Amino acid sequence: MSRPRPAPATRAAVPPFAVMSILNRVAELRAAGRDVVSLCAGEPSAGAPSDVRARMTELMGGVPLGYTETFGIRPLRAALAGHYARWYGLDVDPDAIAVTTGSSGAFTLAFLAAFDAGDRVALARPGYPAYRNILTALGCEVVELDCGPEQRFSPDVTVLEAAHARAPLAGLVLASPANPTGTMVDAQQLAALAGWCAEHGVRLVSDEIYHGITASGEAGSCAWAVDRDALVISSFSKFWGMTGWRLGWCLVPADLRPAFDALAGNFALCAPVPAQHAAVAAFTDRSYAEAAAAGRTFDAARAVLLAALPSLGWGAVAPADGAFYVYAELGAALADHVDSVAWCAALLEREGVALTPGTDFDTVRGGSAVRVSLAAGPDAVAEAVTRIRRFQS
Amino acid sequence: MSRPRPAPATRAAVPPFAVMSILNRVAELRAAGRDVVSLCAGEPSAGAPSDVRARMTELMGGVPLGYTETFGIRPLRAALAGHYARWYGLDVDPDAIAVTTGSSGAFTLAFLAAFDAGDRVALARPGYPAYRNILTALGCEVVELDCGPEQRFSPDVTVLEAAHARAPLAGLVLASPANPTGTMVDAQQLAALAGWCAEHGVRLVSDEIYHGITASGEAGSCAWAVDRDALVISSFSKFWGMTGWRLGWCLVPADLRPAFDALAGNFALCAPVPAQHAAVAAFTDRSYAEAAAAGRTFDAARAVLLAALPSLGWGAVAPADGAFYVYAELGAALADHVDSVAWCAALLEREGVALTPGTDFDTVRGGSAVRVSLAAGPDAVAEAVTRIRRFQS
Repeated sequence: MSRPRPAPATRAAVPPFAVMSILNRVAELRAAGRDVVSLCAGEPSAGAPSDVRARMTELMGGVPLGYTETFGIRPLRAALAGHYARWYGLDVDPDAIAVTTGSSGAFTLAFLAAFDAGDRVALARPGYPAYRNILTALGCEVVELDCGPEQRFSPDVTVLEAAHARAPLAGLVLASPANPTGTMVDAQQLAALAGWCAEHGVRLVSDEIYHGITASGEAGSCAWAVDRDALVISSFSKFWGMTGWRLGWCLVPADLRPAFDALAGNFALCAPVPAQHAAVAAFTDRSYAEAAAAGRTFDAARAVLLAALPSLGWGAVAPADGAFYVYAELGAALADHVDSVAWCAALLEREGVALTPGTDFDTVRGGSAVRVSLAAGPDAVAEAVTRIRRFQS
Repeated sequence: MSRPRPAPATRAAVPPFAVMSILNRVAELRAAGRDVVSLCAGEPSAGAPSDVRARMTELMGGVPLGYTETFGIRPLRAALAGHYARWYGLDVDPDAIAVTTGSSGAFTLAFLAAFDAGDRVALARPGYPAYRNILTALGCEVVELDCGPEQRFSPDVTVLEAAHARAPLAGLVLASPANPTGTMVDAQQLAALAGWCAEHGVRLVSDEIYHGITASGEAGSCAWAVDRDALVISSFSKFWGMTGWRLGWCLVPADLRPAFDALAGNFALCAPVPAQHAAVAAFTDRSYAEAAAAGRTFDAARAVLLAALPSLGWGAVAPADGAFYVYAELGAALADHVDSVAWCAALLEREGVALTPGTDFDTVRGGSAVRVSLAAGPDAVAEAVTRIRRFQS
C-alpha cells in the first residue's frame, strides 16, 4: 500500500503568466497552419543588433564557452558601466553590476537578497504580473497599490503612505516606463519616491527594462542617480530586442552584494555565456543606432493604433510615455463577452490575433482591459486592427 | 533623518558556492597574467559538439530569436524524448519535458513546485551544495544524510528510515553519478529508494546530470524507469560539455505540471533560445560520438591522478563510478593547514592550481577533503600533480 504523494506545494499555486499561456496557444495554432498576428508578448520583431549576431558567429569558431564569474564577464560589466555614463552621466563601478539570466533572473535574486518571507512589498496595480507571482511564491506579502488614471497609473507618496500606515512596508517595486501602461515617472517624482523609501527604511527595486524606449527619445530616469541603496534592474530584451537571449543585469547596492553573489552562485552559477560575450557588441554606435531605429517603429505602430481607436469603439487608454504597449479599456467593445479573458480568447481563436487580457496586470479592474503590444511593428498592428474590426462587427 | 535600510534578508544568508568564488579568483589571477591550472569546476574542456556550433552559426543569419513556449521549443522536446528512448528504452511524452535554464533553473522550479517552506527535504552529505543552499533560501528544512564510505557515499533505505522517523520527510534529492564523489546507485538500489519514497509519500528528485559519463560506458539508471512521480533533472552541461550555455531540462510528473508551468512562466519565461535551437543538434550521431570521446579523456585523466596518488600521500578516495571528479581525503598532506579551505587557497596562490575544498560538499567532514575535477583532461591533471607535489614538498 502506497501513501498518496504530497500535493504540489501551496506556494506553487501562483497564476500562470497569461502572456506565456497565450504564446503557447499561438505556437499551437501556427503549428496547425494558422496565420496568427501576435501582439501579446513584449517582443521587438527586429531581434538582436547585427554586431551582436556577427560576434556570436565568431564565437562559435572559438574557445569553449564555460562558466564565467558569477556576476558575468569583465568586458560586459565594463561595457555596462560605460552605458551608465553614456545614457545617464552616472559613475557605476563594474563590481556593482551583476549580469543575470534576463531581468527575470535579476528579480528572483533581488527579491531573495532583500526580502524575507512575510515581508510586505508594494507594487503598482496594474503592473507586471511576474513581480507579484515571484514574490508570492517566495512567501512575501504583495501589497498592491491601486494606481488608476488619478495617479497616472504610477505610485505616488500618498498611496505609499497609506499602505505603510496599515503595516510597515519592506520594499517598493517601481517600473518606469511601466508595463502594461507605458507611463513614466519623471526625475522629480522618482526622487520623491526614493526619498520616501530612504526615510522609511523601505528598499526600492527599480525596473528600468524599458529605458531608451520613450516617446521623448530620452533614456528615462535611473534610480541610482538618487538612491544607491536601490536595486536597479534592466535587460537586453527590450531596447536591444534580445528577448530570447535571456540576458539582463542588476545594479546591486554595496550592502546586498555578498548576499546577491552567494544567491547567484547557487541559483544560477552564471548568466548564459554565449549571450554574455555577444552582448558586448550591443554597445557599439551601430547597435545603439539600430535599437533606436526599432524604437521609431514602435512609435509608428502606436500611431497606427491610436488613429484606429475611434473606429474600434474602445474606452480610455493609459498615457503611453514609453515602452511599446497600449493599455486600453474595451468599453462597449467587450459586448457580450464575460470579461477580457473571454474576449481575447475568442479573438485569438476566430481571427488569429493574440492580445493580452488586462487581468494579467490587474486582478481587480483588468477584466475590461487589454494590452496591445506594439513591438511587432506598424504593419502587424494595422493587420490586427482590420481583424479586430471584423471580430467586433 | 533617514532610518537605516532593512538588512539583507535572513534567508539570503546562504553560503557562497565555493566553486564560483574560486572561479572568480582564478579569473583575477589569469587577468593578472598568472598561469592557472583550474581543476575546480565541473567543466569539460572540449565545449559544445561541432554540430551544435554549426547550428548556432546558421541561426545568427536567420530569424529573430524571441521567447519560446515556456517548456521550450517542440523540436528540442521531441529530440529529448528520442534521447530517453535511445538511452533507456523509455517512452517519455514531450509534453512532460520542461527545458530549463541549466539544471540550476530546473532545481529552483522543482523545489518551488514540490516543497513548501518548512518541508523537510533529505539529501546526501557529501553532496552538491546548491541543493542545500537553494532549499535553505526557499525556507525548506535541509536534512543531511550522512553518507560515508559505509554507505558507499549514497543514501540507502536505512538512513532514510532513520531521518523519516525523527520527523516526516517531504522529499529526497538523489544524485547518481554523484557530485563530488562520482559514486552511482544501480538500478536495484534506485528501485528500492523510489519504492520507499512511494510508500512514505516522499517526492523523489533525481539528479541525472552526469548520466552518460561513467566508467562502464552505460548511461546510468533513470528514475522514470521506476517512478513517474519523480522529478528527473538533467542538463546539456556535462555529457555534451555545454556548461556556459545554461541549458537543462526536467521530466515533470503529471500532477506537478500545471504548477511547474506557472512557476516557469513567472520565474524564467523560457530557457535561453539560441541555445535551445542549437541544442537540437546535440542529438546527432556525431554529437553523441564526440561527447562519448570526451568521456574517454575523463577516464584518462582519472588514471593519471589515481596513478599519482601514492606519490602525493593523500588518504582514502571515494569510488568514482562516473562523473569526472575524484573526492579524496588529504590525510597527512594537509600538513599544518588548518583545513582544506586554507590548503586549497594556499595551493591556488602559490602554485596556480585550483581545486575545490571538501567543505563545499560536506560541512561536517569536508575540512580534510578536496574535490579534483578531471574535466580539463589528462594533461591538465598531470601538470597539476607536478605542481601539487612541489607545493607539498
